[in-house]
Amino acid sequence: MQTCFFAISGVLPHDEAIRQIKNSIQKSYGKRSEEIVKLNFDAVDNALSHLYEVSIPAKAESTLELERSVKGRLSEFVAGVTACLIERRGDELPVSAIPADGTWPSGTTQYEKRNIAQSVPVWDPESCIQCNKCVLVCPHAVIRSKVTAENELADAPEFFKSIKAKGKTFEDDERFTIQVAIEDCTGCSLCVEVCPGRNKTAPELKAINMTPKIPLLEEGIVNWDYFLSLSEYDRSRLDRSKVKESQFLQTLFEFSGACPGCGETPYIKLATQLFGDRMIVANATGCSSIYGGNLPTTPWSKNSDGRGPAWSNSLFEDNAEFGLGFRLTIDKHEVQARELLQGLAGKIDAELSKAILDADQSSEAGIFEQRERIEKLKKELKNIQSDDAAHLETLADYLVKKSVWIIGGDGWAYDIGYGGLDHVLASGKNVNILVLDTQVYSNTGGQQSKATPTGAVAKFASGGKEQLPKDLAMMAVAYGNVYVARVAMGASDSQTLKAFIEAESYNGPSLIIAYSHCIAHGYDLKYGMEQQKKAVECGLWPTFRYNPELELLGKNPMKLDYKGPKIPVKEYMYNESRFKMVESMNAKEAQKFLETAEFHAKEMYKRYKNLSEN
Amino acid sequence: MQTCFFAISGVLPHDEAIRQIKNSIQKSYGKRSEEIVKLNFDAVDNALSHLYEVSIPAKAESTLELERSVKGRLSEFVAGVTACLIERRGDELPVSAIPADGTWPSGTTQYEKRNIAQSVPVWDPESCIQCNKCVLVCPHAVIRSKVTAENELADAPEFFKSIKAKGKTFEDDERFTIQVAIEDCTGCSLCVEVCPGRNKTAPELKAINMTPKIPLLEEGIVNWDYFLSLSEYDRSRLDRSKVKESQFLQTLFEFSGACPGCGETPYIKLATQLFGDRMIVANATGCSSIYGGNLPTTPWSKNSDGRGPAWSNSLFEDNAEFGLGFRLTIDKHEVQARELLQGLAGKIDAELSKAILDADQSSEAGIFEQRERIEKLKKELKNIQSDDAAHLETLADYLVKKSVWIIGGDGWAYDIGYGGLDHVLASGKNVNILVLDTQVYSNTGGQQSKATPTGAVAKFASGGKEQLPKDLAMMAVAYGNVYVARVAMGASDSQTLKAFIEAESYNGPSLIIAYSHCIAHGYDLKYGMEQQKKAVECGLWPTFRYNPELELLGKNPMKLDYKGPKIPVKEYMYNESRFKMVESMNAKEAQKFLETAEFHAKEMYKRYKNLSEN
Repeated sequence: MQTCFFAISGVLPHDEAIRQIKNSIQKSYGKRSEEIVKLNFDAVDNALSHLYEVSIPAKAESTLELERSVKGRLSEFVAGVTACLIERRGDELPVSAIPADGTWPSGTTQYEKRNIAQSVPVWDPESCIQCNKCVLVCPHAVIRSKVTAENELADAPEFFKSIKAKGKTFEDDERFTIQVAIEDCTGCSLCVEVCPGRNKTAPELKAINMTPKIPLLEEGIVNWDYFLSLSEYDRSRLDRSKVKESQFLQTLFEFSGACPGCGETPYIKLATQLFGDRMIVANATGCSSIYGGNLPTTPWSKNSDGRGPAWSNSLFEDNAEFGLGFRLTIDKHEVQARELLQGLAGKIDAELSKAILDADQSSEAGIFEQRERIEKLKKELKNIQSDDAAHLETLADYLVKKSVWIIGGDGWAYDIGYGGLDHVLASGKNVNILVLDTQVYSNTGGQQSKATPTGAVAKFASGGKEQLPKDLAMMAVAYGNVYVARVAMGASDSQTLKAFIEAESYNGPSLIIAYSHCIAHGYDLKYGMEQQKKAVECGLWPTFRYNPELELLGKNPMKLDYKGPKIPVKEYMYNESRFKMVESMNAKEAQKFLETAEFHAKEMYKRYKNLSEN
Repeated sequence: MQTCFFAISGVLPHDEAIRQIKNSIQKSYGKRSEEIVKLNFDAVDNALSHLYEVSIPAKAESTLELERSVKGRLSEFVAGVTACLIERRGDELPVSAIPADGTWPSGTTQYEKRNIAQSVPVWDPESCIQCNKCVLVCPHAVIRSKVTAENELADAPEFFKSIKAKGKTFEDDERFTIQVAIEDCTGCSLCVEVCPGRNKTAPELKAINMTPKIPLLEEGIVNWDYFLSLSEYDRSRLDRSKVKESQFLQTLFEFSGACPGCGETPYIKLATQLFGDRMIVANATGCSSIYGGNLPTTPWSKNSDGRGPAWSNSLFEDNAEFGLGFRLTIDKHEVQARELLQGLAGKIDAELSKAILDADQSSEAGIFEQRERIEKLKKELKNIQSDDAAHLETLADYLVKKSVWIIGGDGWAYDIGYGGLDHVLASGKNVNILVLDTQVYSNTGGQQSKATPTGAVAKFASGGKEQLPKDLAMMAVAYGNVYVARVAMGASDSQTLKAFIEAESYNGPSLIIAYSHCIAHGYDLKYGMEQQKKAVECGLWPTFRYNPELELLGKNPMKLDYKGPKIPVKEYMYNESRFKMVESMNAKEAQKFLETAEFHAKEMYKRYKNLSEN
């Protein structure tokens, strides 16, 4: 736009204007790499060579109307309020249209069909090994799989693909399908990169391949709608500790506004698949608060029972405390509910009351059974005329297990909110803390945080960060009674899955620090998962799980999940321009950074291994 | 007073009033121990039995004048301003009497002779082994020793005691003396308890013994004044790494308003002896900010060159950052001064300039030589007519090494100021952080902090704290490039001394966590140093030094300074009512606390030992 403006406006002589634009590009990106400068120069040159005049008719003659901003089976609220806000007609809404208590309907990103991808993944069932890795890594939850009884597929659309479901869990008459919400896809290609399948006749192809979207659109929409109408697989029949089976669990976080290829959202999505129907989330300021609550729509969703994560966002400086407040409130309400229930002895069925008070909710089955008991209890309460019964009715849901999650980035967890996070860890309370660690302030524009690794360029570390990164994981391990895991989905999805399950089941504070690749790292994010793997293999992102429960059993609580540095740090670092760009600025300094990082990786392994063996 | 008021006022019937007072004592202290209740009851009964009428004459006939509030060789400021404020006549002062820039003259506690001790220590030269431990532990710097040439003592007062100085450092004609500022003594008796000397003829006596003060007063004042007039020993001839010799270094922190027996102040005093002439102190809110800046007097003092610590107090929540600001400012001024000096090449003596720029200030001798060079430089600058020369004159002192200290209690370091402290540790900058760890918010009335040990009673932990204490030391060790020491003067004064010297000389962030006994622990503080020893011996206060410099030399940076748990935790814990009182409240819980503490002590030793051996 700038090029075209100067080319036709005559504000400056044409050649002079173009020269200045290119100078400015050189100045801004010269340090990054010649390639980036060249790409920008090309953009200028191509803009000039494709510049042509469009004549504007004197009068609008088209009969086409603008499409509405939302599509699908719309609720009254989405059609009447959400759509108005998206269309920038919010001023037309009366105050009474806005929820009086500030709560906001969830699961509304599904109605915004952004259609931003040029190419989208297409599934090739013949080559598929049904591993579900594409489903796991998709940052926007646009790739999903289901297993369905064959007879349920009788009315499937003509081009709807499915194959016989593999694995002991499934029946002979059950079919496996992968479908893509192509209108919601961002085209990042992470799914293709992680796919281990190979097309036997065309080995350059995988079991899922990027394909131009437009020709697929009509058929894709029909397939997706049909796919959504199929029932969810019975959770109680799935083994959620297996990566593949975990991906048949319904996601309750979908179609967020995160960047294409985002490394954070797959972790959030996984948490909602595992615990979404009972999650209460305190979300710190940062990327996750933006794509998580990008009003007027929200990606946090709910299942067919109407259950889903309750989500709220607080500040950088107090989010851990905010989440701790959820926990304390829930615990207090539960105590009150138990007291009321005990006080109503004689009026409530004694067996039901005992079953509720003694319930074992350590498994999903236990939680589901408790929910059924609470429904029965509520029915009984309606027939009792007393203040206590009425009060218990409002509190009864607190007798079902809730899963409190405190989520944020490294800027929050390592820096601004760390004082509070530390205080929450020290509290001993049962909360789950998920740090989406991009090693830099992503949302605010790339400032260094204490998680930023040595040698990485960031704002306030323009020559590369000199200090070692803070080892938040080891600092939490020092408490002794905190569950701590350092994970990287791209290095080991099964380790990641184990960590989430262990963290949530631990009855005390848990901290998961999740390596999250990010556009701020400076490379094509379709390689994000590969880079995660390299970060672990070179030793700069040691993965482990520290489970205090093991200590009480007389076992070593520290379980190392990597085998120490196996590749030079350079093989990881120099794929990313945040590290690589130091080389052209100051080769000597760059070499020093590599050596420091290498030394650091070895020292960490020594220390961690040591802790795991004694 | 309350007892007497009710006994004579007739507001309530006499017996009823006394009964209510005793009920109230039972209620307030019953949980603590029967002994405390009895002591309070005795106070009531003794007040009653000693109550007698004082008749007030109709007219004042005495010719005595009130003594002034200050004594000694007073500066104009102390006589004119400080004294007025102490005498509550501050309203009479004009604004112009108050320092315009907010700085406040230091070393003024010496003029307030509080005379609060009933008994004071008296030195017995015959039994003394000249270890200087009494000097080291004195919380108020009222016990001091000097070594002086015999001929300097020719005019000593009649009763001034001295003996031949022991040790290779000293000459044959040098004499050792210990003197007590008995008007400033609080009578805590810590000095007597730590004294290893024994009187051969009366073995119940030590080389220093508490003795009623009044008969000693006149002679004591004369001796003390004379003692102060004796010259300080040449610092360059003392080996400051030896505890004994370190105590001949002049203290620049004296006669503070800290509690009798305070466990914090000996650490501060030690720092001023070692580094006081170049210290800049950022002091967090807490006890140390109260006794450190108890206007109108200040215990922070200066030597005969007018050099002493510059001290300022900031808030709980930002003191580490406040101190980091000192460091950054000093560093920037130094850079500026070096640039100006280099820019004046040709105008300044080249040899002097080179010597200043290349100076090695890693030793005290190096610092003193640099100071002399800077004096020469300032003289040269006066003869140069240029803005740069004038500017350099104002900055030249920054070319001499400064020692930045960030000081506060555990409430600051573990809790409220921890976010900032962590950020400062991560900065890699050369600051020294001293945590005076009383394991509880002392100054604000005994609230639990994250340093409070398991089983200790504190506000917000009225049944004993359930969580494990936070291991701040290990959290700092996780950085890898922070010097960290955990010390307890009562367990090992030489380890403490080593830690202070190593921390200050380390060119990066240093953290010393110093066990500080406190009235909040609930026992007679004359046993403070013994309890410190037991805290280490039972394994609950592991002492160590982690020096990153060793790692660069290929050595293990972790040096363990204790030998693991040697006595049951109960032998330490149950001497203090903060732990002991749980027993009477809930014996079962008390037992559980003991077991948890025992387990924790063993686990810490395992982990620390491990780190020190690999």
